[in-house]
Amino acid sequence: MQIAVLLYDRFTALDAIGPFDTLGRLPGAETVFVAERPGPVRTDSGALALVADKALGEVTRPDIVIVPGGPHPEVEMENPAVLDWLRAVDATTTWTTSVCTGSLLLAAAGLLDGRRATSHWLYLDRLPRFGAAPTGERVVFDGKYVTAAGVSSGIDMGLTLLGRIAGDEVAQTVQLMTEYDPQPPYDAGSPDKAPAELVARLRGVSP
Amino acid sequence: MQIAVLLYDRFTALDAIGPFDTLGRLPGAETVFVAERPGPVRTDSGALALVADKALGEVTRPDIVIVPGGPHPEVEMENPAVLDWLRAVDATTTWTTSVCTGSLLLAAAGLLDGRRATSHWLYLDRLPRFGAAPTGERVVFDGKYVTAAGVSSGIDMGLTLLGRIAGDEVAQTVQLMTEYDPQPPYDAGSPDKAPAELVARLRGVSP
Repeated sequence: MQIAVLLYDRFTALDAIGPFDTLGRLPGAETVFVAERPGPVRTDSGALALVADKALGEVTRPDIVIVPGGPHPEVEMENPAVLDWLRAVDATTTWTTSVCTGSLLLAAAGLLDGRRATSHWLYLDRLPRFGAAPTGERVVFDGKYVTAAGVSSGIDMGLTLLGRIAGDEVAQTVQLMTEYDPQPPYDAGSPDKAPAELVARLRGVSP
Repeated sequence: MQIAVLLYDRFTALDAIGPFDTLGRLPGAETVFVAERPGPVRTDSGALALVADKALGEVTRPDIVIVPGGPHPEVEMENPAVLDWLRAVDATTTWTTSVCTGSLLLAAAGLLDGRRATSHWLYLDRLPRFGAAPTGERVVFDGKYVTAAGVSSGIDMGLTLLGRIAGDEVAQTVQLMTEYDPQPPYDAGSPDKAPAELVARLRGVSP
């Protein structure tokens, strides 16, 4: 079982690491970080690089692919090398997954046409132009396509998918070992719950 | 404002990335990843490397230091280069923090003597030998020392500390942008909540 995590310039670190430190702990699985060119790939703020150990062409038949998001999805949504790779590996994956705006890359590759999907809340309205139906759920399963909402939701996706693949006990073991018993200091993690002025400001709309 | 994240061989990625993608979004702050030697540093499973852009000697006065944990804390707990650096930077930090077994590195450096602290639930009992008093809380503040429980708790720590430093609105903005509205598929994230047989097995004790 091989899990491939796609990296690209200015991805968001937690989008990739949430699934990596949950689903990536699937017993017997190997995780590989892959990018157009192997080597360091900078995250959105530029303050950190993760290393892609393989080039796209070296990872041709992963069982699971994970596509993180980032604040500038439009760049990779027009990158033929990335879109071609996504289409090619999707032909044989068991699960094709994304976190945050990663779903827009899947959508741009034509993989979410006619499917239910999600994305970062600020980008949900971009899904329909690719034939995908946005939902308000945090983790959306449609066949083998699993999309998660913004950034931190990849942890929930990773555990959920781990349970589907390996059973509840394995997923609970990983939850306990990562001590994932969330206690956010605020209840502002979704546009339904955050202060309305904050949501409006982030939407670029006056309250 | 400079935030330094310590990396070392076989650290756990999410321990570092949880605070990085929350506290690291503090407006005006610069985050730097630092290790004994600059370059790629492999995580616990070996499947990923994060790049340390700076050597320890290049980062001498960070305002905040973040120490992630990993499954083999005993190695760095006996590494004079790391312990000396922790003691040196702690002399001028505003906040000295850890996630998971990172608190054992702080403790081994003598920084938690007489303080309340936490760690990964499987390692809590190692704190008293360094004079620290373990607590059952997920995020523990004692003066400028902030320690978080296992792996994923660094997200809660990052948001909590962000709120203390920059105010609730900034922290809520980051919570909303990272869509941190957790919906774990199980309620097994702490030893109090997970199935007793699972806890016992992980403790290496027959149920």
